Amino acid sequence: MMKDNRLLFDKYKSKIFSADKAAKLIRNGDVVGVSGFTKAGDSKAVLPAFAERAGEENLQITLITGASLGYNTDGALATNHALAKRMPFQADSTLRKEINAGNILYIDQHLSETAEQLHNGDLPKINIAIVEAIGVTEEGYLIPTTSVGNSATFLAMADRIIIEINEAVPLEFNGVHDIKLQKKSPNREILEVTSCETRVGDTYIKLDPNKVEAIVYTNKPDAPARIADPDKKTISIAKHLMQFFEKEVEEGKLTKSLLPLQAGIGKIANAVLAGFLNSPFEDLKMYSEVLQDSTFQLIDAGKMNFASASSITVSEECYANFIKNFKNYKDKIVLRPQNISNSAEVIRRLGIIAINTAIEFDIYGNVNSTHLTGTRMMNGIGGSGDFARNAHLSIFVCPSISKEGRISHVVPMVSHTDHTEHDVDILVTDQGLADLRNLAPRERAQKIIDNCVHPAYKEQMQSYFDRAKLKQGHTPHILQEAFSWHTSLDEEGTMQLQTKAESLVSKKDFSFS
Amino acid sequence: MMKDNRLLFDKYKSKIFSADKAAKLIRNGDVVGVSGFTKAGDSKAVLPAFAERAGEENLQITLITGASLGYNTDGALATNHALAKRMPFQADSTLRKEINAGNILYIDQHLSETAEQLHNGDLPKINIAIVEAIGVTEEGYLIPTTSVGNSATFLAMADRIIIEINEAVPLEFNGVHDIKLQKKSPNREILEVTSCETRVGDTYIKLDPNKVEAIVYTNKPDAPARIADPDKKTISIAKHLMQFFEKEVEEGKLTKSLLPLQAGIGKIANAVLAGFLNSPFEDLKMYSEVLQDSTFQLIDAGKMNFASASSITVSEECYANFIKNFKNYKDKIVLRPQNISNSAEVIRRLGIIAINTAIEFDIYGNVNSTHLTGTRMMNGIGGSGDFARNAHLSIFVCPSISKEGRISHVVPMVSHTDHTEHDVDILVTDQGLADLRNLAPRERAQKIIDNCVHPAYKEQMQSYFDRAKLKQGHTPHILQEAFSWHTSLDEEGTMQLQTKAESLVSKKDFSFS
Repeated sequence: MMKDNRLLFDKYKSKIFSADKAAKLIRNGDVVGVSGFTKAGDSKAVLPAFAERAGEENLQITLITGASLGYNTDGALATNHALAKRMPFQADSTLRKEINAGNILYIDQHLSETAEQLHNGDLPKINIAIVEAIGVTEEGYLIPTTSVGNSATFLAMADRIIIEINEAVPLEFNGVHDIKLQKKSPNREILEVTSCETRVGDTYIKLDPNKVEAIVYTNKPDAPARIADPDKKTISIAKHLMQFFEKEVEEGKLTKSLLPLQAGIGKIANAVLAGFLNSPFEDLKMYSEVLQDSTFQLIDAGKMNFASASSITVSEECYANFIKNFKNYKDKIVLRPQNISNSAEVIRRLGIIAINTAIEFDIYGNVNSTHLTGTRMMNGIGGSGDFARNAHLSIFVCPSISKEGRISHVVPMVSHTDHTEHDVDILVTDQGLADLRNLAPRERAQKIIDNCVHPAYKEQMQSYFDRAKLKQGHTPHILQEAFSWHTSLDEEGTMQLQTKAESLVSKKDFSFS
Repeated sequence: MMKDNRLLFDKYKSKIFSADKAAKLIRNGDVVGVSGFTKAGDSKAVLPAFAERAGEENLQITLITGASLGYNTDGALATNHALAKRMPFQADSTLRKEINAGNILYIDQHLSETAEQLHNGDLPKINIAIVEAIGVTEEGYLIPTTSVGNSATFLAMADRIIIEINEAVPLEFNGVHDIKLQKKSPNREILEVTSCETRVGDTYIKLDPNKVEAIVYTNKPDAPARIADPDKKTISIAKHLMQFFEKEVEEGKLTKSLLPLQAGIGKIANAVLAGFLNSPFEDLKMYSEVLQDSTFQLIDAGKMNFASASSITVSEECYANFIKNFKNYKDKIVLRPQNISNSAEVIRRLGIIAINTAIEFDIYGNVNSTHLTGTRMMNGIGGSGDFARNAHLSIFVCPSISKEGRISHVVPMVSHTDHTEHDVDILVTDQGLADLRNLAPRERAQKIIDNCVHPAYKEQMQSYFDRAKLKQGHTPHILQEAFSWHTSLDEEGTMQLQTKAESLVSKKDFSFS
């Protein structure tokens, strides 16, 4: 009876497979497109079953997803050497290790671009798609679960389709999605999203039912987000940011409802967003990639009245509340394909305020979002570039220091550039905020040193900048020294060049991880 | 009589000033918005007169333009210490020297963003606008000349306006422009440009006639573009690119009319575009910033049937032909504001093929468009980022080497990043083409070394990459050595690390300047 509610297309009924049986449909060398975006709506059964099989049978695939997967699926695939190539994002420690060892080829992409590149034929054809659903319509179409990601593109392009019907996601979820595929250039239509609320498509994903080779039932919630309570540093970052927004409102540049907010995924961004709870701002809206705990806190508090994204990734507690009170949220959220949630056209039109987390930034405003000491991939650029490049305000936040002060997140020159000086308006650390608008490089550098650098690194940074200026140049640098902080970290375990014996900062005060 | 034809608004007639008198309307400390985009349509009289006055009276302004100016205006302003701050682009050797000495603050911006930032209040208010016109309508509105640039924004935001009516530009030019200002977010409208030909605005720029304080007559053509005939290297770059496009057509990814082309300004891009003359492609269109000689050659040859841009910057010969046969071109071109010619929304919708020139690129696909050895500004990023970021295909071209082989334009790590690995699809030198689509960093590096690096640098680059891989990492680098080629150039005069005594390449074969 329950199954009937979720599978309204009779022809699929003969195709109800076990996960193991369905996993056998994946062939060695396949390009596999799988639902899942920051843990939400991923394949809970077939892909994990394939990981096991791949280990036994020595199989390898190219895996394309929305973004990161949950439940160590990427880890199991990596452990079993099942991945030849992986894109466009990951956040798994085992997979990361294999990527950095050069054993798995990883393509770190703007999250808006994977679907574009697939449609343009710039990436290999999708052989098989595995997409999680809350159910199937009478026409055989798929209703997604907690994310949309690239699923519409995978289903349109794949030769073969496996649908995972997840009974853990309530059927009431039907209606939350807004799905549209655009035509190819030069005949592409206008993307008529003119507000966070605008709907332009269907609540389900159309597909060719003849391609569906297996239906697999699951009953597992998404892996919950690991949420940290705001701490001293994230509270400080949020405070600086709220003060900045208040000033913008005072000066008439923004209204009290600001402009639609985007926030990167993770502890810092989530904590920063929570800063809006005790702010004077109201009628906030979100046009983002991921709805996190803070989104629902803001809706509950009456601060936010609408949120558009591509996925919902929240803590266990938040998810339980969300499901329980779903009727309160249903008309306040929409989930879209990631090339629409992250569309350049819409981001610029709506005038998004983009808040993303940096690994490090430099004194001229360049941002590294991906690489540790220029070489080791952390997660990926995600959607930060989609938003930063076309946003009304492009803001990056990070702690000033971490690892008991051994790492400064403000450096002379970033060891890898994901966002250039041209795309960064505001930088914030726990120390303060630097508004880079209307500033030339030399002005930016002094403002960043004054406002964002931790006191333990200020002298060292001022010395670098002062000596670089003696060499002249629009963007003064001493190339021989530009990465000396990074090489010192690798060789000596700290970026503090002067004080290797004794840290200037106590463990107690500065314990960022 | 002639003047009557050009000045149809009677109230302005009492305001006809000499350039010197009009230049006195510019006050010390003013933020001045001036027409002009890659030499085209700039202030020929008032700004040069101000440069002289500023030297005598010790005045300084902030100067905002469309892009670069012609006739050494920027040079005269710099020489006379008249510039406190300059944005968003320049290409003048005297100004460049002052910028790199730290005497003039320069903000190097995406050309689409200056107008956005002005409307958003992120840049200081425009006090006075100086805009070149072919004439003034009965309503007092301004008809631009050979460029639109940021003029519509300057005129909308300025307190005071000076109009330069240039009688050297024929009145027939009226009708070529398509001008529209958009509303501010979140109420911004859709930009309904759905093809190169689409017109969405007026042929003139609306303004408040009460703000007009002076009308100045001039009769000077734009400074001509310096065009170089294609040489061995640019012909080779064009050949690799044409072969690539032919392959894309064979594989069904593009049609014979490709997709709308954008090409950066300058000798290399112009020569590369000329490569389409003897290609199998037809019904080409252009959606670009600047129409160069090659655009008109392609139109004349029947290869291109429409071209949209923000300015026309051509050689003297090309300009003479253009004016003489204007009726052949009038329905084949349109000039737009630069935030529309470079709009993210339109670029992604139309699926632009963006071809821009790099100063250098690295083995992982990062591109430097602006800085020599990481510190000294050349010109600026211009519109390359507007296009590269949102293009269907993002292509960067440059010679493999220059200065008799002392400089390799492919380096281990770019000394400044303007376009990140995420935004670059295709790299081309005279040596060959590297298609980076669907490649992970390690794959990209080997392909770039194999296809793009000059033989004189191949061994040196392979050695770097091989040794970097030993250190592991998703993007292998040896940070201690990453800029060794650049520091060697600064210190030893060559990037060739092994062969300081004797160049591996002869002057004759590799003489790029």
